[in-house]
Amino acid sequence: MYRIGIVGDGFTAADLLRILAGHDGVRVTRILSTENIGRRISDVYPHLTGFSDIVCQASDMNNLAGACDAAFLALPHGLSVPIAARLLEMGIKCIDLGADFRLEDVAVYEKYYGLDHGDPDLLKTAVYGIPELYREQIKKTSLTANPGCFPTGAILPLAPLLAAGAVAADDIIIDAKTGVSGAGKTPAPASHFCSVNENINAYGVGTHRHAPEIAQELSRAAGKRVDITFTPHLVPMNRGILSTIYTRLAPGMQAAGLRRILEEKYGGETFVRILPDGVMPHTGWVYGSNMVHINLVADDRSKRVILLSALDNLTKGASGQAVQNMNLMLGFAEDTALNIPPVFP
Amino acid sequence: MYRIGIVGDGFTAADLLRILAGHDGVRVTRILSTENIGRRISDVYPHLTGFSDIVCQASDMNNLAGACDAAFLALPHGLSVPIAARLLEMGIKCIDLGADFRLEDVAVYEKYYGLDHGDPDLLKTAVYGIPELYREQIKKTSLTANPGCFPTGAILPLAPLLAAGAVAADDIIIDAKTGVSGAGKTPAPASHFCSVNENINAYGVGTHRHAPEIAQELSRAAGKRVDITFTPHLVPMNRGILSTIYTRLAPGMQAAGLRRILEEKYGGETFVRILPDGVMPHTGWVYGSNMVHINLVADDRSKRVILLSALDNLTKGASGQAVQNMNLMLGFAEDTALNIPPVFP
Amino acid sequence: MYRIGIVGDGFTAADLLRILAGHDGVRVTRILSTENIGRRISDVYPHLTGFSDIVCQASDMNNLAGACDAAFLALPHGLSVPIAARLLEMGIKCIDLGADFRLEDVAVYEKYYGLDHGDPDLLKTAVYGIPELYREQIKKTSLTANPGCFPTGAILPLAPLLAAGAVAADDIIIDAKTGVSGAGKTPAPASHFCSVNENINAYGVGTHRHAPEIAQELSRAAGKRVDITFTPHLVPMNRGILSTIYTRLAPGMQAAGLRRILEEKYGGETFVRILPDGVMPHTGWVYGSNMVHINLVADDRSKRVILLSALDNLTKGASGQAVQNMNLMLGFAEDTALNIPPVFP
Amino acid sequence: MYRIGIVGDGFTAADLLRILAGHDGVRVTRILSTENIGRRISDVYPHLTGFSDIVCQASDMNNLAGACDAAFLALPHGLSVPIAARLLEMGIKCIDLGADFRLEDVAVYEKYYGLDHGDPDLLKTAVYGIPELYREQIKKTSLTANPGCFPTGAILPLAPLLAAGAVAADDIIIDAKTGVSGAGKTPAPASHFCSVNENINAYGVGTHRHAPEIAQELSRAAGKRVDITFTPHLVPMNRGILSTIYTRLAPGMQAAGLRRILEEKYGGETFVRILPDGVMPHTGWVYGSNMVHINLVADDRSKRVILLSALDNLTKGASGQAVQNMNLMLGFAEDTALNIPPVFP
Repeated sequence: MYRIGIVGDGFTAADLLRILAGHDGVRVTRILSTENIGRRISDVYPHLTGFSDIVCQASDMNNLAGACDAAFLALPHGLSVPIAARLLEMGIKCIDLGADFRLEDVAVYEKYYGLDHGDPDLLKTAVYGIPELYREQIKKTSLTANPGCFPTGAILPLAPLLAAGAVAADDIIIDAKTGVSGAGKTPAPASHFCSVNENINAYGVGTHRHAPEIAQELSRAAGKRVDITFTPHLVPMNRGILSTIYTRLAPGMQAAGLRRILEEKYGGETFVRILPDGVMPHTGWVYGSNMVHINLVADDRSKRVILLSALDNLTKGASGQAVQNMNLMLGFAEDTALNIPPVFP
Repeated sequence: MYRIGIVGDGFTAADLLRILAGHDGVRVTRILSTENIGRRISDVYPHLTGFSDIVCQASDMNNLAGACDAAFLALPHGLSVPIAARLLEMGIKCIDLGADFRLEDVAVYEKYYGLDHGDPDLLKTAVYGIPELYREQIKKTSLTANPGCFPTGAILPLAPLLAAGAVAADDIIIDAKTGVSGAGKTPAPASHFCSVNENINAYGVGTHRHAPEIAQELSRAAGKRVDITFTPHLVPMNRGILSTIYTRLAPGMQAAGLRRILEEKYGGETFVRILPDGVMPHTGWVYGSNMVHINLVADDRSKRVILLSALDNLTKGASGQAVQNMNLMLGFAEDTALNIPPVFP
Repeated sequence: MYRIGIVGDGFTAADLLRILAGHDGVRVTRILSTENIGRRISDVYPHLTGFSDIVCQASDMNNLAGACDAAFLALPHGLSVPIAARLLEMGIKCIDLGADFRLEDVAVYEKYYGLDHGDPDLLKTAVYGIPELYREQIKKTSLTANPGCFPTGAILPLAPLLAAGAVAADDIIIDAKTGVSGAGKTPAPASHFCSVNENINAYGVGTHRHAPEIAQELSRAAGKRVDITFTPHLVPMNRGILSTIYTRLAPGMQAAGLRRILEEKYGGETFVRILPDGVMPHTGWVYGSNMVHINLVADDRSKRVILLSALDNLTKGASGQAVQNMNLMLGFAEDTALNIPPVFP
Repeated sequence: MYRIGIVGDGFTAADLLRILAGHDGVRVTRILSTENIGRRISDVYPHLTGFSDIVCQASDMNNLAGACDAAFLALPHGLSVPIAARLLEMGIKCIDLGADFRLEDVAVYEKYYGLDHGDPDLLKTAVYGIPELYREQIKKTSLTANPGCFPTGAILPLAPLLAAGAVAADDIIIDAKTGVSGAGKTPAPASHFCSVNENINAYGVGTHRHAPEIAQELSRAAGKRVDITFTPHLVPMNRGILSTIYTRLAPGMQAAGLRRILEEKYGGETFVRILPDGVMPHTGWVYGSNMVHINLVADDRSKRVILLSALDNLTKGASGQAVQNMNLMLGFAEDTALNIPPVFP
């Protein structure tokens, strides 16, 4: 029985607790908070009543000493660097759900997040945590950078196609649509019910922080520099990201070949599913689960390729993938506690 | 052409501007703000682009001097008392959309709002602004207390029945369901999209500030003390209040008589409609309008009476009724600018 | 390993498959359908991709012969009577999710459902399937009448209080608010997105079929005839029922006593939780789970009692409770496969 | 006072009645229906209570003879051709809200709609009804083809840029997101509340009937053949279309020039607004109105251009634009009855 700490008490922390309630091999022994110190987590999140009654402690890492074998860092960007360093010193493996260890290039990090990184050496030891792409490295690391929600939805369909040279690396548009929980629980004008309901809008056009993260991973897959256009939109729903991705067939490539590449890559995966031809991914079909549904429409005449992926931004886009990474890092079966069917309707 | 001031820039101010954009007899000359001084209102509320480009000024009443004939006070509770006093001195008629002039009994006000009233004499001059009940008084007053949104939905169906002695004054339950805009635009945990969406809950059970306001007006209608049970619920929608009201037939009264009383009372009203027998009010059918739809189901055997009313909390429940009051106070036809059909779907 | 059949392929069938995917002691061997014969259930419900790929067979009970130990009947009202008779003959235990075995009084059934019952003798053998009330009987029966969604939400808080004589049996109002999935998957004007979204309305006022079912069970608990007023409302959400119940303290009873009765009754239950004083049930806090959250507000002066309960209409209100009953009937631990935390947000 | 007929009683008919209720120069004298013959329209659409109580008549064009000067055809595709021919013979001007007169090329019509056109000669006389582009022609025609909702949102931002040669005619992607009312009021699985709520999905990928309509109009603007990629998505909201359009700067063109072209083209228009730099269009900001909000983000280095437009699919996307066309055809000021501010929130 491994002992687990969670640093932070936002939506991703709550989803970690939901998932870990079904994990027989671990026990959550600590939750650290700044606003809810001394409160039971089921008072903060009453949906956890009967599933977790752990009491939040102060965000002092000494509270994890001797009490945890691994920890999830579910913190605002910029806070994880010293914490991860400290926990690793204490022999605690870390899965960071923030952005601090995702970007290899410190200069890019500092430009997009407006922060000094503080520990570029540590950064070099982190593994980017998409198990379907980096499974073996994740098994061996003590520090996983859990991907952003948008990057997960964009990278999974594109990476194998770029790796195979099957689509144009220089013409990729990602039009993404997300539910509101991705913005976190802190009240803000943009997450006010009346701003979101009966509305859709783009935001962060040309400036969103997930763009360089996507570009980094796609470049790695393609083996050359990939530039992307990424436009996120806010949709009136709690959970879900639909990514509609536009690219072109590489010269000599046929539409049918794309499906074959994806099916070959993901045919053995538990959490990534290529839907039957003509069935479009719906975010409602992965709600609350760790599943990713993918499909594509390609046209040999026009060379146009449309890839679509759907995932739950809090689960496969955050906490579910984090548990998947934890399972690999601690030696559990990768799907332990993650075979949660989606809730529909 | 009367000149109008609006003190405040929240949702009810925005809805006043929406309605007054269609009023040929008035012009909004001032909007006072604390957070948006110097900004065009169409930058604060881009839906007003093309309909109003007035610039917000500071909340100093001198800014209204010589510039306004009447003013709407759309402020948090407790701020209107000195402002109304000042404006009335300046000869500016006031419609207060807050609670400060609604409760006749200062002690009740101070208990429920936790504030000293500050000007009980001024309070005595205010008229409670439901035109269907107090039309003549409103025409003559300089200070109207615009009713709360829940009270409007509860009082309109109940007042004529209580006045006629047709239902039990000692057994009245009001189970109300409201959209989120009633809570105002300030971000808060309870108005976060993720708290409201895919959820319904009761709040303020036994303690909501609209309960004494409802009881006051129902007591006035009944000519005796009326106690009520009032339970508001928050529903995932922007606008709308549905009130489901449970009472009993008074001894000797028949179910059919209730409908007759309501039809007689409201048959000549523009904004209050008794729906055909069996057609239940839907808040979606009054969306964005000044209409109130009412119906009832009563049973001669059990004596049980269920009254239902639907209105738009921001319009008939706030800004629409305020314009209706303004029309009466300034001598316009009561429905000027208010014949706005609901937006459905 | 028990073999399970599901007769029907609507929303409750889908939720049964979601839940049973996590049950180690049973395997779904048959699904019977009329519209989707020959289709994989994961083509009908793509959210089940990776969780169930059983193929729908025709609704001929011979298809279950020798293939099932127990069956769920998830059918429109009126179809279950001959099917249950046939399956029981074949030695297959039945949990009926429809209404055909819920009402003891055939005359009441025939009045509310407009159908001849067809098998009153079989009806007498059925047990009403709320495990928290009838656990021992359910263990022994071969035919469980799974309760309606509204009745579950009303009966759980009221039954212990009526059994204790703590509240007035002659003054009970149940104002219930439900998500749309309760109406089933067949498209209809009332379930069109544009009819429901941005709207709330009452329906079936005074005529809803769940009223006699509630009255029957409350009468049984009270040991005397209980009449109720029941008003359901349709709320723009997929799942969830909030019941706001109004009654009065019985003479000599104190408010504090009510909470004590409920805590005593349900203190040992897994799925029923009395929330801390002042914390109102939210349907969003039980979403996708088998939990029921209950609370109450009572006032010693006015004698008024307000009970509130929240549940997921498809889970504790249908398929979750059905699995709970199946567990009891087949000898599994009652919570097997049901410790599913709610999905929030 | 002109007399107006409406053929059809779907959502667009209802929105026509909402808008025309505020038009002083016309009176709706006839509504023709197939399902609601003999019913008051306010019984079919209770939100019109107090605004229209016209009784639906059978869909026999003789019912319009001598009773109408102009008619709106709000019918399923394929039904308008003979009806328009008949009405024009009777001297009744027609605005067709369906697709039957939009596509110049009969072969394209027949391919996408699977119907024989039946009257190609009449088709040649129709004017495509976007007043901002074809104002003078509309003034003179007796038959307007009111555009599709998606085409309106795509053509308005793109047409002036293509006409100016400012963007690439061979690289245009339109990723559109629509509310549900665009699918009409007939219940169907895809418009069931539980299919749409908490979900987003693409549909009609590569096959949607609005694609050739958009291509036709863009080709006309560009003066050469324009191919497009068009992907519509269904969003959980009643009204609204957001179009996110991806193209590239034409050689030699600067980003700043695009804004200048749009501002010049639309600076004098009432219903089309270019938002301030950096303010993204929100469908919630045009809800219920005839407004279109447009903005763009372009990058001189990458040459990438992102255009965004928001409109209400039932108003500027259907009935509002139809009234705008009617105003031009009958000689009214173009904005008569259309200065309706959006309802926000």
